[in-house]
Amino acid sequence: MLQDKKYLMIPGPTPIPPAVQQAMIRPMIGHRSGDFAKLHERLIKKAKQVFQTEKDLFILTQSGTGGLETAVANVISPGDKVLALVTGNFGERFAKIARLYGAEVDALEFPWGEAIDLKQVEEKLATNQYRAVLATHNETSTGVTNDIGGLGALVAKTDAVLLVDAVSSMGGMDIRTDEWQVDIMVTGSQKALMLPPGLALVSVSEKAWQAMETAKAPRFYFCLKQARKNMAEWNTAWTPNVTLFYGLEAALDMILAEGLPEVFARHALMTKATRAAIRALGLELLAADEVASHTVTAVKGNDQLNTEDLRKVLRTKYGVTFAGGQGKLKGKIFRIGHMGYADKLDIILAIGALEMALVEVGYPVQLGAGVAAAQKVFLEG
Amino acid sequence: MLQDKKYLMIPGPTPIPPAVQQAMIRPMIGHRSGDFAKLHERLIKKAKQVFQTEKDLFILTQSGTGGLETAVANVISPGDKVLALVTGNFGERFAKIARLYGAEVDALEFPWGEAIDLKQVEEKLATNQYRAVLATHNETSTGVTNDIGGLGALVAKTDAVLLVDAVSSMGGMDIRTDEWQVDIMVTGSQKALMLPPGLALVSVSEKAWQAMETAKAPRFYFCLKQARKNMAEWNTAWTPNVTLFYGLEAALDMILAEGLPEVFARHALMTKATRAAIRALGLELLAADEVASHTVTAVKGNDQLNTEDLRKVLRTKYGVTFAGGQGKLKGKIFRIGHMGYADKLDIILAIGALEMALVEVGYPVQLGAGVAAAQKVFLEG
Repeated sequence: MLQDKKYLMIPGPTPIPPAVQQAMIRPMIGHRSGDFAKLHERLIKKAKQVFQTEKDLFILTQSGTGGLETAVANVISPGDKVLALVTGNFGERFAKIARLYGAEVDALEFPWGEAIDLKQVEEKLATNQYRAVLATHNETSTGVTNDIGGLGALVAKTDAVLLVDAVSSMGGMDIRTDEWQVDIMVTGSQKALMLPPGLALVSVSEKAWQAMETAKAPRFYFCLKQARKNMAEWNTAWTPNVTLFYGLEAALDMILAEGLPEVFARHALMTKATRAAIRALGLELLAADEVASHTVTAVKGNDQLNTEDLRKVLRTKYGVTFAGGQGKLKGKIFRIGHMGYADKLDIILAIGALEMALVEVGYPVQLGAGVAAAQKVFLEG
Repeated sequence: MLQDKKYLMIPGPTPIPPAVQQAMIRPMIGHRSGDFAKLHERLIKKAKQVFQTEKDLFILTQSGTGGLETAVANVISPGDKVLALVTGNFGERFAKIARLYGAEVDALEFPWGEAIDLKQVEEKLATNQYRAVLATHNETSTGVTNDIGGLGALVAKTDAVLLVDAVSSMGGMDIRTDEWQVDIMVTGSQKALMLPPGLALVSVSEKAWQAMETAKAPRFYFCLKQARKNMAEWNTAWTPNVTLFYGLEAALDMILAEGLPEVFARHALMTKATRAAIRALGLELLAADEVASHTVTAVKGNDQLNTEDLRKVLRTKYGVTFAGGQGKLKGKIFRIGHMGYADKLDIILAIGALEMALVEVGYPVQLGAGVAAAQKVFLEG
């Protein structure tokens, strides 16, 4: 039973709050009922607050990747020129989807661990006519956040639509969908929104609706125009995951009751404490402070520290799951998820466990030093 | 939401494992059904392993205090001479119940924070004829464990029956009901057994059954002979808490799957780490190492440390609930429960929060020092 308690600190799925779990065991209702329509209407209103948008928003029964494909399938036609800004594994995935839909993709790649360089984007936009620009707000694979507001200002001057993956940041970071001029913003349920996987939330701007009029890719399940048509009566195009809709309301209620600024500040504080602790232990962070994600922190391994051995000890001896690296960072970093239903003491616990595991894999650390650094950040607020 | 996460570290009720919660939402069944009888039979068999008894054992729908009254009501008649061994608030409660049933109670009181002195008990037993001896195995109010084996050997030489309150230790500490010659052993569901409150478990020796034959106190709901009669068909005398019976099976399965020696070792290790941390922070423990409870640790306040202010900061700012003092220790100590569904990282988290709260109430501590001391104990195993 020592291992019965599990501490899931990966960048999604994340722990589910009891209030959300309780909501999800409510008796099933028909998805064409009046009760469901009322729930749907309330959900859209609440989700728009988190997206900071007054434009259209859809709750789709699919994963975040399904949300990314929805964005692509609705606006990109075969042969379209697309600019993909790649800062890691999920940026690569977004570009891959566009290529699968026949787009001619210009992939502007940045070193993993660094953010998008808007200068380079500006140059690209000046010399090319793009149908769409694809960007990742919070690159889960590296713990780097990109400046979507700056990017939006550049793209808005062009005919291109801006499609943004905010799967691992929405609900944990300050995302101004409308102010940032994002045309399609995509998130998933299983990250900072504190739900199990299974829903994608997608907002759509007027510019995106216009792009859809001429888009030629086949789309049925992913069709946003169909979704809009059904939404007029608070219906969904296809059968929705009723259980997750229940849970989404409980989760959004928690977020709005805490207050968006407070939620964002909590995530920022957890990040600051985690980074202080990692530095105090003599380990190296992948991302620079200025671009550090507030939902996931990536830490580098080194010649003395095998990240996979470390993760195994944490998982088997302490029940703590950190994520490993992905793609070209596989085996080179470990990642600590601190998003959604997480607070100060989760960081204390995680760092406390990390210190013990570091000793167990033979990496020299001063016990308590990381915890003390995190505590100091929390006490300073 | 920062306060949404709650860390309940009081000496009961304790956190409920997910497997137990899940068992408790199974559909209701009739308590006179064959399914319930089979569940009951399995439960008795499993509970006896935890009690380390081959004698009769009953699962009664009442709290631990109801269990203590059951013990008294079944063997003590008005005018009976009873020796009550009092080491704290729960020892006082046991004596009070006996007085209410008309017993002439000799209360042998020991300083709060110390254990029963068997020498004094031996002298008392040598010069008096007692009907019963009442003792507390684990004194929740002080975090002290009494030597019930030593006591049992003394009482067994007399005609007295030994009634023992093991409410806060059963399932967390090595309790040898038969080897220790305890006649009625009582525990509750909401401590180391990892259930919500609502059940008392009571074991009964042959000597206790014999004492019941001549006991004259009125008893109906608490009647153990009635319970035994119904138990012959795996029935209960009165309506049982079916939900908690479901949960009890899941909890006992967890305990037996981990293994009793492993469960006891885990509790002992959590105690050792907690005590090392408290000492590293310059605070004083109430109980001596030799008699320290393995399920709850009591820590003294002092002129610089108001324990109630400290507990308030922990509760409101970190969601951590420690218990305060009771009776004559009210306002003088705080108590950390570490029983049942608790592991190493609960201790790390609790000490990490305690350190921050100590700073916030102005008590000088070196951040991380307590955590490091606990980590050291855990790493040494």
